[in-house]
Amino acid sequence: MKQSLLATKTLREAPTDEQSVNAILLTRGGFIDKLGAGIYSFLPLGLRVLRKIENIIRDEMIKCDGQEILMPALQPREVWDQTGRWDNFDALIKLKAFGDKDFALGPTHEEVISPLAKKLVLSYKDLPLYLFQIQTKFRNEPRAKSGLLRTREFSMKDLYSFHADTADLDVYYEKMTQTYIKIFERCGLGEKTYVTLASGGTFSKYSHEFQTEAEAGEDTIYICQKCQLAINKEIKEENPVCPKCQSDDFKETKAIEVGNIFKLGTKYSAPFDLKFKDKDGQEQTVIMGCYGLGPNRLMGAIAEVWRDDKGIVWPEEVAPFKIHLMALGDDDQVKKETDKLYDQLTSEGIGVLYDDRELAAGAKFAEADLIGIPWRLVVSEKTLAKKSVELKKRDAKDVKLIALNKIAKELK
Amino acid sequence: MKQSLLATKTLREAPTDEQSVNAILLTRGGFIDKLGAGIYSFLPLGLRVLRKIENIIRDEMIKCDGQEILMPALQPREVWDQTGRWDNFDALIKLKAFGDKDFALGPTHEEVISPLAKKLVLSYKDLPLYLFQIQTKFRNEPRAKSGLLRTREFSMKDLYSFHADTADLDVYYEKMTQTYIKIFERCGLGEKTYVTLASGGTFSKYSHEFQTEAEAGEDTIYICQKCQLAINKEIKEENPVCPKCQSDDFKETKAIEVGNIFKLGTKYSAPFDLKFKDKDGQEQTVIMGCYGLGPNRLMGAIAEVWRDDKGIVWPEEVAPFKIHLMALGDDDQVKKETDKLYDQLTSEGIGVLYDDRELAAGAKFAEADLIGIPWRLVVSEKTLAKKSVELKKRDAKDVKLIALNKIAKELK
Repeated sequence: MKQSLLATKTLREAPTDEQSVNAILLTRGGFIDKLGAGIYSFLPLGLRVLRKIENIIRDEMIKCDGQEILMPALQPREVWDQTGRWDNFDALIKLKAFGDKDFALGPTHEEVISPLAKKLVLSYKDLPLYLFQIQTKFRNEPRAKSGLLRTREFSMKDLYSFHADTADLDVYYEKMTQTYIKIFERCGLGEKTYVTLASGGTFSKYSHEFQTEAEAGEDTIYICQKCQLAINKEIKEENPVCPKCQSDDFKETKAIEVGNIFKLGTKYSAPFDLKFKDKDGQEQTVIMGCYGLGPNRLMGAIAEVWRDDKGIVWPEEVAPFKIHLMALGDDDQVKKETDKLYDQLTSEGIGVLYDDRELAAGAKFAEADLIGIPWRLVVSEKTLAKKSVELKKRDAKDVKLIALNKIAKELK
Repeated sequence: MKQSLLATKTLREAPTDEQSVNAILLTRGGFIDKLGAGIYSFLPLGLRVLRKIENIIRDEMIKCDGQEILMPALQPREVWDQTGRWDNFDALIKLKAFGDKDFALGPTHEEVISPLAKKLVLSYKDLPLYLFQIQTKFRNEPRAKSGLLRTREFSMKDLYSFHADTADLDVYYEKMTQTYIKIFERCGLGEKTYVTLASGGTFSKYSHEFQTEAEAGEDTIYICQKCQLAINKEIKEENPVCPKCQSDDFKETKAIEVGNIFKLGTKYSAPFDLKFKDKDGQEQTVIMGCYGLGPNRLMGAIAEVWRDDKGIVWPEEVAPFKIHLMALGDDDQVKKETDKLYDQLTSEGIGVLYDDRELAAGAKFAEADLIGIPWRLVVSEKTLAKKSVELKKRDAKDVKLIALNKIAKELK
C-alpha cells in the first residue's frame, strides 16, 4: 500500500487521555482511535494487525477440528436466568428493547451455545463436537484504563468442546493447551508467556491461564524456576511448592492474562438439559470445555512487550506489513527504481507499505520506527550507485546493503 | 469437509416459529438457528455463505480504494446528541452502562466516523478518502418476522466517502453505483436487482436503492419497461413518467431493498465541524457520501430468489461449497474411489462437502437438494463400471456421466 493514500496520521506526542503504554503507542502509530473509555476504533493499520492475530487463532482452531460459527451479541434474559447468571454475572451489560424485553449484551456465550448444541448433539455419534467463533463481546468494566488490555467492547475467540466423558475432555484440553502455546509463539509472545494454574471454578480444582510477563499486567504470577509452570497469586498460598515439580524456587512477576481454558463439566449442559444417548441407549449429560482468547487484548500485550523508546516492534507474523519501503531524496531515478521494487515485491505477495510521500529522511525514519514494521528498505542515490538497497531490521542498529537483484530472495 | 463431521442437522419439516420462506429454508438446511425474533446464530454452513458474500463486498470496496476499518457498536450518547438523532432515530437501541452513562448500540456509524475523520482529514491533500467496515449493527425492529431480511442484529458493510466538492462526490457515487451492480451480479442477483430511485433526504432530491424483485419484499417498486430504472412507490406519485427515459410503461412488483447509497453532503460533517484547508488555505466543510449493504439481508434475499420446492439453489460464488460429493452403496471400491476423488478435488482448492455417511441414496439426495450446493457428484458401482461419475447441477433435471480422469478439468 502506498503511504500517501493510507488513512493514518501518526502523532508525535502521546495522547493526553491515555495512561497505558499500549494505548499510547497504538494511538501514536495510527493503529487505534479512542471513542470512549475502553471503546476503540481500529484504523486500517490496526485492523490489519487484529485480523492477522485472528487468522492465526482461526487457523489453529481449525487444525483442532474446530468448526466456525457466529452467535448473537443480543441474548435474551431467559437463557441467562436458566443458569442463574442474569443476577450473578458482575460485568453483564443489560438493556431493554423490542417492547421492554430484557436482553444481555454477550460477555461470553455458554448460555447461547448450550441450547444450540441440544439441536446438534443427539447421540454419542455426534460427539465430540468443537464449535468456535470470533465475535465481539461486551463487558461492563468499571475501570478501563489499560488500553486494549481491558476494554468494554472486544473481539474474542471462544471455542466450546462437547464430550461423551471426562477422559475425552481431558485429552482435548491438553491438545488445546499445546495449541495455545503455539498461538502465542506465532504471535511473538512465546518466550514471555507461561501456562499458569489458577482457581478452577466448580468442576475442576484448577483452570489454566496463559500469562504474558509484562509490567502492565494486572495479575501477579509465580513462575517455577525449575519447570516454568506458573501459579496465579490467587492460589499461591495453597501451593507453597510447585504442584508439578515440587520446587519452591519461584520468580514473582506481573503478567497479562492472554488466554484461559476451563473444564466446564456439566456446569452449563445440566441447566439446559444437554444430553446424548450413549451406545447402550442411555441418556447422559454432555461434558463441556471452553477455551477463550482475546485477539485485541493479545494485540495490546504484543505492543506492551515488543517496543522500544521509538515505538512498537511488531513480530513478523502479526505485523501490518512485512516491509516498509521508502525512497530518499527527489531524484527521478531513485523514485523510478523504488516504484519498480514496490511493484516487484507486491506482485510476489510480500506485504509492503511504501512511503511515497515527499518528506525528509529523518521524518520518514521516525514514523517508520513508530509504526514498527519489521523490515525497513531504503533506496537512495547512494545505494543505487552500488546497485543496492539498504535493509534494516526494526530493532537492529546496523543496516545492511543488499544487491537489487537479490532483494526478493533475501526477503522470502 | 466430511459431512459426518459437520455440525449440522437438517430438518425435514419447517420450523413452527418461522413465517418467511428464507428463514424456513435456511433453518431446514442447517444454515442458521434462531435465538429470538430477528436474532440468529450462523452455523458452519451459514457462516460460510455469509463470509463469501462479505468477501465479495470487501473485494469490490477495495477495488474502489476503500480502506477497511472497524468502529465500535457501543456509541456514547454525546455523539448522537451532536446530530440530534439520539431522540429522532426511531430504531435506536439505548442502554445504560459504566456507571449510568447513556449509550446507543450502533445502527449506523455516521456519528462515529465523522469525528474520526476530523483526525485524518486536515487538508485537500487528504481528500478524497474512502473508509469502510463490515460490522455488526443493531436496530430496535418492532416486527422481525422476515427471517434474515429484517433482523435486530445484523452484519452491515458501510462505506463513507469524503470529498472536497460535490463534483468529486458525484463521480464516486456513480462509480459506487456500478460497483453495487457488480456485487449483486456476483451474488447471483444481477438479473433480479434494479437500481431504484427513492427519496433523498436533506441533501439530494433522490437517493438510490438497489431492489431485488421478490414476493417476500416489503417494498413496492415500479420498473420502467423501457430503460429498467425502477422507482420506489414513495416517490411514484411525483414521477408519473420515468425520470430517465420519460416512458410511462412501468411494471409494479414487490422487492427487497438489498442496498442503498446516499449523498450526505454536509449533513454529518457540519455538526462535527469536519473541515479541510483547500488549496488557498481556506477552510471548507467536507462533503460526504455513504453506501450501505447488508450481507445477511443479501443472504436472505438469495434464499428467497434461488429456490425450488426441494430447497435452496445457491449461486456458485456464494455457495457454502462448490461440490456435494457422495458415494452410493457400501461397496469398498466405491468408497475408496470416492475418498480418492475427495482428496484430489480438495487438493486442487475446490470446495467439496463429502457426504461420507452411511445413508440411503434417497436420503442423501433429499438432503443435498435442501442444502443446495451447485453441483452434485455421485460415485456408485454403476458409474465406476463406466470409469465415470455422475454430475448433476442442483437445478437441472438430467445427470451427466463424466470420465473419472476428466472430472477436475470439468469442474474448474
